[in-house]
Amino acid sequence: MMPARNDGQTMNHAALEQNPSEPLRTAWSNQWLERMRDQRISMAHGSGGKAMRELIEHLFVEAFRNPLLAALEDQAVVPLDDLRRQGGRLAFTTDSYVVNPLFFPGGSIGDLAVHGTINDLAMSGAKPLFLSCGMILEEGLQIDLLRQVVQRMGEAASHAGVSIVTGDTKVVERGAADKLFINTAGIGIIPHGVWIAATRARPGDAILINGPIGDHGIAILTARNELALECPVESDTRPLHDLVQAMLDVCPDIHCLRDATRGGLATVLNEFAQASAAAIHLNESAIPVRESVRGACEILGLDPLYLANEGKLVAVVPQAHAEATLEAMNRHPAGQDSAIIGEVTETPAGAVVMRNAFGGLRVVDLLIGDQLPRIC
Amino acid sequence: MMPARNDGQTMNHAALEQNPSEPLRTAWSNQWLERMRDQRISMAHGSGGKAMRELIEHLFVEAFRNPLLAALEDQAVVPLDDLRRQGGRLAFTTDSYVVNPLFFPGGSIGDLAVHGTINDLAMSGAKPLFLSCGMILEEGLQIDLLRQVVQRMGEAASHAGVSIVTGDTKVVERGAADKLFINTAGIGIIPHGVWIAATRARPGDAILINGPIGDHGIAILTARNELALECPVESDTRPLHDLVQAMLDVCPDIHCLRDATRGGLATVLNEFAQASAAAIHLNESAIPVRESVRGACEILGLDPLYLANEGKLVAVVPQAHAEATLEAMNRHPAGQDSAIIGEVTETPAGAVVMRNAFGGLRVVDLLIGDQLPRIC
Repeated sequence: MMPARNDGQTMNHAALEQNPSEPLRTAWSNQWLERMRDQRISMAHGSGGKAMRELIEHLFVEAFRNPLLAALEDQAVVPLDDLRRQGGRLAFTTDSYVVNPLFFPGGSIGDLAVHGTINDLAMSGAKPLFLSCGMILEEGLQIDLLRQVVQRMGEAASHAGVSIVTGDTKVVERGAADKLFINTAGIGIIPHGVWIAATRARPGDAILINGPIGDHGIAILTARNELALECPVESDTRPLHDLVQAMLDVCPDIHCLRDATRGGLATVLNEFAQASAAAIHLNESAIPVRESVRGACEILGLDPLYLANEGKLVAVVPQAHAEATLEAMNRHPAGQDSAIIGEVTETPAGAVVMRNAFGGLRVVDLLIGDQLPRIC
Repeated sequence: MMPARNDGQTMNHAALEQNPSEPLRTAWSNQWLERMRDQRISMAHGSGGKAMRELIEHLFVEAFRNPLLAALEDQAVVPLDDLRRQGGRLAFTTDSYVVNPLFFPGGSIGDLAVHGTINDLAMSGAKPLFLSCGMILEEGLQIDLLRQVVQRMGEAASHAGVSIVTGDTKVVERGAADKLFINTAGIGIIPHGVWIAATRARPGDAILINGPIGDHGIAILTARNELALECPVESDTRPLHDLVQAMLDVCPDIHCLRDATRGGLATVLNEFAQASAAAIHLNESAIPVRESVRGACEILGLDPLYLANEGKLVAVVPQAHAEATLEAMNRHPAGQDSAIIGEVTETPAGAVVMRNAFGGLRVVDLLIGDQLPRIC
């Protein structure tokens, strides 16, 4: 009456193998995509009926190709023993992506949706494993545009070694959403012995960043035609879990780690200072900023400290391991321009202060709002 | 240099305890909510800065009250041993909610966002544990309306015994979204020995449903003022994991299980028939439909088989356990009007056919689109 426990698990492993009819299926999906080239999303694509099923099978399942998703159940199922082998704790996170425009120099909403959630997992020290994908589509969206976004998601996931294993698609009437919004949630496993938290900054700790700040914010501005630059700046969107692993290899006791997305470097540092009830002293001249970003900020009256990044992390590590961590970061492709930009002190507790090139000090506070809306 | 493994875990458990300053905090949040009573969402609430932080702390953290979320890290962290103790496999799912209107007879978008994702987990036999919450808000949304939705989410989660442990908030300009959209992803644990899949329907199996169909669809129609009924129909939105547990207690070998949401009963049965390469024979007179729903369908030319439900599951179980399963369902508050509505046969493989009261047979196919958009 009740299947032996191994039955279920064997089936699950069987499902993980490649389907021999894969090439046939791809040809069928290519035909469908060809037929849909000039078509647009209709309300029927969010209905639960045939139109939605075709969209999911030919577009999402093809682009995200993995056996957990291909089962097309309403949930993905993973043996806990497989997870337990990789570490002691599970990390779970979510982000919605509403960036405007959908494509910009260096990336797209699809890249952000994969990298952003991978990075939120990575900042706990977790190895990212599985993502979900929830799409909200506006009626009238070109199916070919959706195909491009979904393809970027599939490629980003594949490059980062994660699988998009479950999803959902909703369609709203023309005018009820702006083209498309994506939500991804993510699951990862934190290795034994890693304990990173915003509360752990201690006086004496060093503050590190893995490269120049503000690239993503300026890339979005140029894509919106609000700015014309001689040397266009590309978004820094990229996954950071591999860099974090390289950092943990030399400094398993990283105290704090966050990616500096919305609100930028200044916001993350304020979060650390407040959560740890410590002060953070920044050295302005040590903070890497590209000349083109600095120039754009001067023209537009923006402060690079508050500009969004999509591939920058801020780490707080014990002083004794700062140099080794910096070296490990500099050796990694995602950290070649890393720098030590400040240190944690006792006072003024909860605040971030910055010393400029002339020795002057200023408080770097949280902004009420943001300089740029819909940045991610 | 590296904290002992137990350090991290002790901290994690410590974080799970109640914060002694809880009442103070609530008073502070109540003051904030009072001040915000007539305020509206601005772009600053999605910025990563102070305005967003206040919204999250006073509105979301208060309503979803649990220590994992209150840590306000970018990810929730759960010891794998705690999960491993509850079963062998992890289930992971996501759904976005775009229902219009936000409030309707019997529920709200907040109830759907919690119940819907709980139910997607429950349909694998999983015990739902953790949800994420991704909000996309339209600039200008009344903060008090958001408060009501978030409160419903918190209450629904609390009643169902799940915790909303991680979240994200984005704001888009006026006109770029219709008030608010919610995405929830969910994690649950499947007990050992349970193996439910859409591919497992076998000739001879019985088809069961836990009550009358179509209530949610008709409730939304009346809320849109497209229909005036003498006896208003309420949405059937409710969590079903507890009912599934009661069913598994008497029939651990449930073959297929899905909730009949978008696309209704007909769509789920077609999914089972196709995934299992079997036929499903329905007995029309056995399918429970309220008189008021039947009447509304006749007036509007709708078919209750395709109407959305938010608290109905369809189960395929071995014939030998059909009666015991039905009895267990009928004893449960979420299954008091359960019925055996058909059986699985060999032919016509992949199709659903229905016999009406006069003995006539008709094919119950998938629709191309849906009768009603933005139903969930």
